[in-house]
Amino acid sequence: MRDVAVLGVGQTKFGELWDRSFREIGIEAGLQALVDAKLSSGDLGGLFLGNMASGSLIDQEHIAPLILDYAGLAGRHLPSVRVEGGGASGALAFHQGYLAVASGLYDYVVVGGAEKLTDVPDATAAQITSSAADHEWEVVFGATLPALWAIMARRHMHLYGTTREQLAAVAVQAHAMAAKNPNAHYRNRLTLEQVLDAGPVAEPLGLFDCAPLSDGAAAVVLGPLETAREHTDTPIKIAASQVACDTLALQHREDLTSLPSTAIAGQRAFARARRAPADVQVAELHDAYTVSALLALEDLGFVEKGASGPAFASGRFGPGGSPTVNPSGGLKAQGQPFGAVGVAQVAELVRQLRGEAKERQVAGATLGLAQNVGGTGATSVVTLLERVN
Amino acid sequence: MRDVAVLGVGQTKFGELWDRSFREIGIEAGLQALVDAKLSSGDLGGLFLGNMASGSLIDQEHIAPLILDYAGLAGRHLPSVRVEGGGASGALAFHQGYLAVASGLYDYVVVGGAEKLTDVPDATAAQITSSAADHEWEVVFGATLPALWAIMARRHMHLYGTTREQLAAVAVQAHAMAAKNPNAHYRNRLTLEQVLDAGPVAEPLGLFDCAPLSDGAAAVVLGPLETAREHTDTPIKIAASQVACDTLALQHREDLTSLPSTAIAGQRAFARARRAPADVQVAELHDAYTVSALLALEDLGFVEKGASGPAFASGRFGPGGSPTVNPSGGLKAQGQPFGAVGVAQVAELVRQLRGEAKERQVAGATLGLAQNVGGTGATSVVTLLERVN
Repeated sequence: MRDVAVLGVGQTKFGELWDRSFREIGIEAGLQALVDAKLSSGDLGGLFLGNMASGSLIDQEHIAPLILDYAGLAGRHLPSVRVEGGGASGALAFHQGYLAVASGLYDYVVVGGAEKLTDVPDATAAQITSSAADHEWEVVFGATLPALWAIMARRHMHLYGTTREQLAAVAVQAHAMAAKNPNAHYRNRLTLEQVLDAGPVAEPLGLFDCAPLSDGAAAVVLGPLETAREHTDTPIKIAASQVACDTLALQHREDLTSLPSTAIAGQRAFARARRAPADVQVAELHDAYTVSALLALEDLGFVEKGASGPAFASGRFGPGGSPTVNPSGGLKAQGQPFGAVGVAQVAELVRQLRGEAKERQVAGATLGLAQNVGGTGATSVVTLLERVN
Repeated sequence: MRDVAVLGVGQTKFGELWDRSFREIGIEAGLQALVDAKLSSGDLGGLFLGNMASGSLIDQEHIAPLILDYAGLAGRHLPSVRVEGGGASGALAFHQGYLAVASGLYDYVVVGGAEKLTDVPDATAAQITSSAADHEWEVVFGATLPALWAIMARRHMHLYGTTREQLAAVAVQAHAMAAKNPNAHYRNRLTLEQVLDAGPVAEPLGLFDCAPLSDGAAAVVLGPLETAREHTDTPIKIAASQVACDTLALQHREDLTSLPSTAIAGQRAFARARRAPADVQVAELHDAYTVSALLALEDLGFVEKGASGPAFASGRFGPGGSPTVNPSGGLKAQGQPFGAVGVAQVAELVRQLRGEAKERQVAGATLGLAQNVGGTGATSVVTLLERVN
């Protein structure tokens, strides 16, 4: 199996992009990534696109050839494949692109992620969000994704003494990070008081504990590591890309304070890369809800079980932390266009590992981890990226 | 890149399965394929699932872990990925499973395809079908998939003298074949007169020129060719799996009587396998409409451009033909559960190449071709399967 590298990254602004269509944002991110990889479209062998719910959101399935088409590449008849796994669609598409290059059947591919969530009313978008949960066992009984994550938060508070303030600290840090990210949906800083005073969505989670519904797209170009130096002075190797799944319904799991899919994808990724959590300097975690980031820190072995709340509130995962968590602002503040999230996480890690993250640079980062989650953890994807010197 | 083989196949009956849920049929096909491959679930490394529109059809995205879950495999936390490309979703999932095993990161995987089209009213299902066409350039102006294919049929009749009767011959043969297939949606024979007398859907296409909307699932197990003899006496090698895409909207193409995506995927597949159309004894073609099969025969090089109508009507692609086309009954009569179609095509070829197709066996078949199409040809996947002696 040959080694694969990330050669280029691109990303649109995340936010309420009412004046821009799905196809426009998909193309913008892809072209940026191609230019960044010093490739022309003639070098490309295929496109893998992460998207969760275009059928419901914009009445359009079959969107992989759509993006290829509007990027002006239909005439080359490249393979173009959409991949879906709820909120983990982006990292799953990245996994497919990785397999494509690793197999040797493809050389250079674009992995894109795109979602347009604001073309429908907020209530419709929220309903579509819940289609990543189990329709027959959860959604028809009124469960929503925020409510399911709230159950996990409440249980963590009960078992480990995690406090409302510790959850809120995740949101405060996310907004402070996003203030330095020009692509972020929200660049305003939040105080702890503002997070605590916000109206409840599903107690204990308030409005500012929940990531927004955003439009946005991101893309990366992958190619064989052996020829990566033709394109960049700082090749970023994919040290691991591992997927793990679980029951779709939260109620069918043994423990409400852990995502086994994240824990196992993480273990598989560290084993494959022959690295350990302590080796990671920068991590992009799936903080769709503040509690999500705390569970991820425990499941990935960055902190002991139950200890994430006080650790996070102490600033251990802030700037200069070990690792620094979500320098992009995460889903919470950079934004949450479902299919784009996992690809944007990779793009941010690449910027960090190249030393191109400007104001939000994590000093000396050589190993980065991304964790992308679908639903309440029926799918998790863990990616390890490594700077090759 | 290591060689990959198909080790097992499974399939539910196709039809109006009102008493069975999406998850039930998905699991039935998968378990059949595992048993056929003489594998236990403990041997599996992952699941790739083709499905077009579960979000709109059953309010459920994130269905790959759903199938894993209800197959009792959630506890093993296997990777499970959904792939979508309109009506080509099944063959695209097959392509991803092929890449997964070829890369060496996965050993044994299940590729499944499933769709539940009859849980919504027919008109809703028809509307969802059209989400594989270009929403902004076709669907909002009232174009439907049958209407778009009817334009292609009309143009072929105009340029090449293809007749209404020649189109109808495709439906007659499909139903005759399906009469011998216990999994088929329709097992009744049709006469030429019945096809010609049926009400119009989009002229010149009548009701019996159009494949039905079906429920159904199919699955295959893939693994490394080098260990295939541990599982079967007749390993079926994947000689090629190639994808090609095109503009999403039909109006943006130069020629209305050809699917360039099929032609190019076919050329790529034959080149990779170092074989030619004349080497193929059995073909499963995407006859969503009668005209689709005629165009495919030309695009794949089985007959000269424009000559498919008389050739088909002469019986050249019937039993004992070169190749025999759609012994399963095709989409037209075996049925059309979108995401399952491409996987069921592979399953039928495997039965044929093993010599296990009973009444509908194509004698001495050693090389089979499957062609799976999304929309009006924005995606085509061509697969070549070869019996290894």
